[in-house]
Amino acid sequence: MGGDHGPAVTVPALDRVIERRPDLRFRIYGLEAETRPWLDKYPRVATAGTFVPCEIAVSMSDKPSQALRHGRWKSSMWKAIEAVKTGEADVCVSAGNTGALMAMSKFCLRTMASIERPAIAAIWPNLRAEGVVLDVGATIGADSHQLVDFAILGCAMARALFSLEKPSVGLLNVGVEEIKGQEEVKEAGRLLRDTALPFMTYHGFVEGDDIGKGTVDVVVTEGFSGNIALKTAEGTARQIGAYLRAAMNRTWRARIGYLFARPAFDRLREKMDVRKSNGGVFLGLNGIVVKSHGGTDEEGFAAAVELGYDMVRNRLLDSIKSDLETFHARLPRTIGSMRENAQEREEQGI
Amino acid sequence: MGGDHGPAVTVPALDRVIERRPDLRFRIYGLEAETRPWLDKYPRVATAGTFVPCEIAVSMSDKPSQALRHGRWKSSMWKAIEAVKTGEADVCVSAGNTGALMAMSKFCLRTMASIERPAIAAIWPNLRAEGVVLDVGATIGADSHQLVDFAILGCAMARALFSLEKPSVGLLNVGVEEIKGQEEVKEAGRLLRDTALPFMTYHGFVEGDDIGKGTVDVVVTEGFSGNIALKTAEGTARQIGAYLRAAMNRTWRARIGYLFARPAFDRLREKMDVRKSNGGVFLGLNGIVVKSHGGTDEEGFAAAVELGYDMVRNRLLDSIKSDLETFHARLPRTIGSMRENAQEREEQGI
Repeated sequence: MGGDHGPAVTVPALDRVIERRPDLRFRIYGLEAETRPWLDKYPRVATAGTFVPCEIAVSMSDKPSQALRHGRWKSSMWKAIEAVKTGEADVCVSAGNTGALMAMSKFCLRTMASIERPAIAAIWPNLRAEGVVLDVGATIGADSHQLVDFAILGCAMARALFSLEKPSVGLLNVGVEEIKGQEEVKEAGRLLRDTALPFMTYHGFVEGDDIGKGTVDVVVTEGFSGNIALKTAEGTARQIGAYLRAAMNRTWRARIGYLFARPAFDRLREKMDVRKSNGGVFLGLNGIVVKSHGGTDEEGFAAAVELGYDMVRNRLLDSIKSDLETFHARLPRTIGSMRENAQEREEQGI
Repeated sequence: MGGDHGPAVTVPALDRVIERRPDLRFRIYGLEAETRPWLDKYPRVATAGTFVPCEIAVSMSDKPSQALRHGRWKSSMWKAIEAVKTGEADVCVSAGNTGALMAMSKFCLRTMASIERPAIAAIWPNLRAEGVVLDVGATIGADSHQLVDFAILGCAMARALFSLEKPSVGLLNVGVEEIKGQEEVKEAGRLLRDTALPFMTYHGFVEGDDIGKGTVDVVVTEGFSGNIALKTAEGTARQIGAYLRAAMNRTWRARIGYLFARPAFDRLREKMDVRKSNGGVFLGLNGIVVKSHGGTDEEGFAAAVELGYDMVRNRLLDSIKSDLETFHARLPRTIGSMRENAQEREEQGI
């Protein structure tokens, strides 16, 4: 039901996925009246899927608390997440309200035992290939241990998606030296270096321009700056696209040039296409949930579904569990107790 | 002396400035042996400027504390800043070490009476024209009052540079609602709305992609996320530039197209040229200091000098002073005491 267009986009998107991932089976959750006509129009989707009619749908404007109050147990969003919990589904994909999806996912699937907070991970195209950036907006702020958790989660995702053995990980920081604050980032760097995890190459700090360069496979930051980096990059790409269109339209020479170079421009457009890397992945929960852009089209939603498929195929959750165990086994006891102290402080609101 | 190239770039840059701003006079601070040959090569610069030979130069790798220890009173960087303090110069422009320049500027010029912390403001090209974004890295973190200070400083700069009467101001935030933390941003929004300043149109929150769109004239954030936004945008622009070059080089058709559209590409390159909007401006000090990119070329350094010139011509410092007075006159007394409490808390390290 989710996204700006609902089943008018999501059902045709599944029809595309069937061609490319014929072994995939769907469970489709939605309002009967809105979904059925689209399933009738795409009989292949109806055949490859089970439709589960639901009483209500969370709207894009619902606040997370409202969505939880009204939509728990019975909304299509809740039921799709619950299918992951019960094992009926391997992954949940939604183009719906991000805040509601995260709130319900946390409530239903719960955060993994040794993780304090979930993160949203984005796949970010870069000059080498693609990278993972997290957290891009699940929560604001993160202490050093949460940043280390994010590094482990993101690293497992990079291994599952990019067939890397030991992805490189960088902590996002600012270039200015001796700057005050952000002790958390420095401390997280020390922890990652000291534990020397066998499934990760810890690179050190990276800056904002390293994301596009592809300096590392995984960029770790807290949700406020991660969200701002993501949106700023999207804005910059659109801005340059607009400059390019204007430049190619200005003179007859440019227009002729454009006609000649058209296949090249089409290729470039594809490279810059945010739909292709569409989908934020909720990591750190007992189950995988993929959030597709609300405003996406069929190709974008199909990409989000395929992203979910690939992560399940590559056993992302199992990797995360074993990586966390390795990390905690290597963590010196003193740090374990530091962590408890930090938790106590947090509970006391200090 | 500053930047990756020293006088080899800065002196020829001044020669360019002379053509465009013939009424500008320079005071040039540097090591005799390195600077003199360049002044001999550019006699116009020697004529339009006074060369002040200095004993030492701060290096790009000096830490701010080292630079202050070794370079105070006698380095070319210090002496250039001091010239602003004594009134011999109206503005100081340097391509040197950012951390050292900020540390020395704070030490020499001091923060303005009612400002807690200085900020670095960047000029950011957007789809409408240009905007001001601050803080892009002076300090990490900012409370609500510091964010309001930044809004006033950035607004005065936008008025001085873009001939706007009432620039619009947005606070950078993330889109997700009911997200925890960043109370400072919400509180800053309330303060800006309640004081309804006559020289500013407070727009509300903006997200990362609004910077490139040009939704507002001034985007306010704290230094960590501001620095990450700036670097991420630079990285994305370079990334797309690389994609574009590769696309135009791939086939003979694309190459022919490129030849036809070449003037359009040149125009685009100019649009995307970071040199043109080169220069971070230190705001909130008793004097204006412009930081040019260290790696910039002649045109970039010239742009930074002209930026300084324009701000002085438009009496930026006077605007800031009178705007701050207006703001404090409108600030209810209760909030003034809140501010004192906040300062007390900070001093006690809470």
